[in-house]
Amino acid sequence: MIDAISFKNGTFRYLDQRFLPLQELHVETRDHQEAIEAIKTLAVRGAPLIGASAGYTVILGINGFTGTREEFPAYFGKLVADVEASRPTAVNLFFATRKLKAVYEANFASDSLESLFAKMTEEAHKIYHDEVDNCDRISRHGVELIKRDFADVLKTRKLTVLTHCNTGTLACCGTGTALGVIRLAWQEGLIEKVITSESRPLLQGLRLTAWELEHDGIPFFSISDSSSAFIMQQGKIDFAVVGADRITANGDTANKIGTYAHAVSARHHGIPFYIAAPVSTIDITMAEGSMIPIEERNADELRTIFGTQVATPTTPVLNYAFDVTPGTLIRGIITEKEAVVGNYNESLARICKG
Amino acid sequence: MIDAISFKNGTFRYLDQRFLPLQELHVETRDHQEAIEAIKTLAVRGAPLIGASAGYTVILGINGFTGTREEFPAYFGKLVADVEASRPTAVNLFFATRKLKAVYEANFASDSLESLFAKMTEEAHKIYHDEVDNCDRISRHGVELIKRDFADVLKTRKLTVLTHCNTGTLACCGTGTALGVIRLAWQEGLIEKVITSESRPLLQGLRLTAWELEHDGIPFFSISDSSSAFIMQQGKIDFAVVGADRITANGDTANKIGTYAHAVSARHHGIPFYIAAPVSTIDITMAEGSMIPIEERNADELRTIFGTQVATPTTPVLNYAFDVTPGTLIRGIITEKEAVVGNYNESLARICKG
Repeated sequence: MIDAISFKNGTFRYLDQRFLPLQELHVETRDHQEAIEAIKTLAVRGAPLIGASAGYTVILGINGFTGTREEFPAYFGKLVADVEASRPTAVNLFFATRKLKAVYEANFASDSLESLFAKMTEEAHKIYHDEVDNCDRISRHGVELIKRDFADVLKTRKLTVLTHCNTGTLACCGTGTALGVIRLAWQEGLIEKVITSESRPLLQGLRLTAWELEHDGIPFFSISDSSSAFIMQQGKIDFAVVGADRITANGDTANKIGTYAHAVSARHHGIPFYIAAPVSTIDITMAEGSMIPIEERNADELRTIFGTQVATPTTPVLNYAFDVTPGTLIRGIITEKEAVVGNYNESLARICKG
Repeated sequence: MIDAISFKNGTFRYLDQRFLPLQELHVETRDHQEAIEAIKTLAVRGAPLIGASAGYTVILGINGFTGTREEFPAYFGKLVADVEASRPTAVNLFFATRKLKAVYEANFASDSLESLFAKMTEEAHKIYHDEVDNCDRISRHGVELIKRDFADVLKTRKLTVLTHCNTGTLACCGTGTALGVIRLAWQEGLIEKVITSESRPLLQGLRLTAWELEHDGIPFFSISDSSSAFIMQQGKIDFAVVGADRITANGDTANKIGTYAHAVSARHHGIPFYIAAPVSTIDITMAEGSMIPIEERNADELRTIFGTQVATPTTPVLNYAFDVTPGTLIRGIITEKEAVVGNYNESLARICKG
């Protein structure tokens, strides 16, 4: 198992994913500003891993607190705000800070700072371990849904699956969300091969998903993002499964830029398109995808690749980090509680309440 | 005007487009093998420019002939076969060699080699200059069609156009095909801005089209290929126009990988999708797109970028150079003879006969 992040003896350790797959660089820090930078720069990325990392980042922050008890509320408020500002589209980040704020609010009045900090640290570990468990449950529900949807096809042959970006161990603490489903489906003999799109501009699919698949010995091909439509036209893709950064009440899903293009092509070719994500990704307070703030990232992500200049420094760029796939294009949303198929306003509300 | 290729005093001069936009490297050669390599390695690219370059490459080859008159037919046959093998999907290449073969066949028996070679050189220049003229005619027909299709919209505002890969001066000898249409439309005040997709793996859009647009002062944004669907969803693209590598009798169009993905998204969002290409691109002998041989290129095009390794050297890759967009997704095909809208089996046959 790849060690994407860990927290021991007050030190946060993360694998700097920007250097993968060519270099496996683990970084240790006790400085919460450095951890925030790691989230901002995508050294640590993937919605669930961002959530768990945000939890540990808050712990680094409180461990660095040197003021009086009276000064702590203001310090903690600013700390949480700084962490939350690191990736404004990632709802898991807010899920983690909300949990830690709850521990703070329940215990600050009654506990010593030491006891409070211990409880918060315990909560941060729980956020991490819950994500690991979630991956196993998501994978199981996903495989059951695929078996149902492809019952007839699976009598005669195995399936080829398209995925986008990275949703594996490197993103999720555990075996992964979409990639967790693919891993388990492959273990159970349902999968012939995986097609993984490179995910420009930062190439998480080409670099990270390919690395994980190669590591596990699962047969695959990497493709450029815009090849998927053509490969679907040739009848070579049976289904697609991807992760999510935020899912709104009606099933609209923000995910890595390029997801929507795959989903539109899948619909055009009659190919089922699935989302696999933990319940923490569902933002039931948001009615629909058009309300999701979409991060525009630095133009140099497109103009340079791995430090190599490929366009002129003056080339204007429109670099959206995410797009939004309407729930109407999504065959099923697979969570750790259950996999739901359509009728998302009702089914996602049920999941979030239950 | 950018000098993409030229032929003077027995020397073929080309701008090595692999180093653009960071370096403007012009290469001169009298060796036809070097010219073939330039076509193979995409130092020279773009269907019409490949055609004109192929013509000049054949001239380099005959200029290097040192045998007897009796030995020439075999030499010429091998020379043409070598040139034709350099890019098997590019029909313009075969259009050029066919023209030179016709001059050979009409004059070999009657002419001295010197006189024959002079006539063939003249024909090669004609291939080049015809492409320049074609660009002007294509641009005019394209602008007329856009004005018709957007007559109502243009009463209140200008248009945003998506294009893919490079179809400008760097590809076409003249002002370009799709980019020629865009240039003229901008000159006539129809265009607010251009959105140019980068065109992985070789980034012709990000490097070459952006360079040409910046050169001409036309407002634009570069995007990753798979962003187009999301930008269409936001209502920010009015139409798309791209080039073609081969068009079959029914309007099915092979073009740079990613074109089909844009076309599927355009259809999903009700956005007109146009092809701009010279008549030489139409292969009326081929009934439909499924018959077009699709070149699979080296995996390292995806695994490395500008010499920088981004994936492990063992990452398996599916690297199609082209895809095929069905004629049914294409609003209009714009040629130097006329712009036709639908009913391609009939309309393209008319164009090719006339």
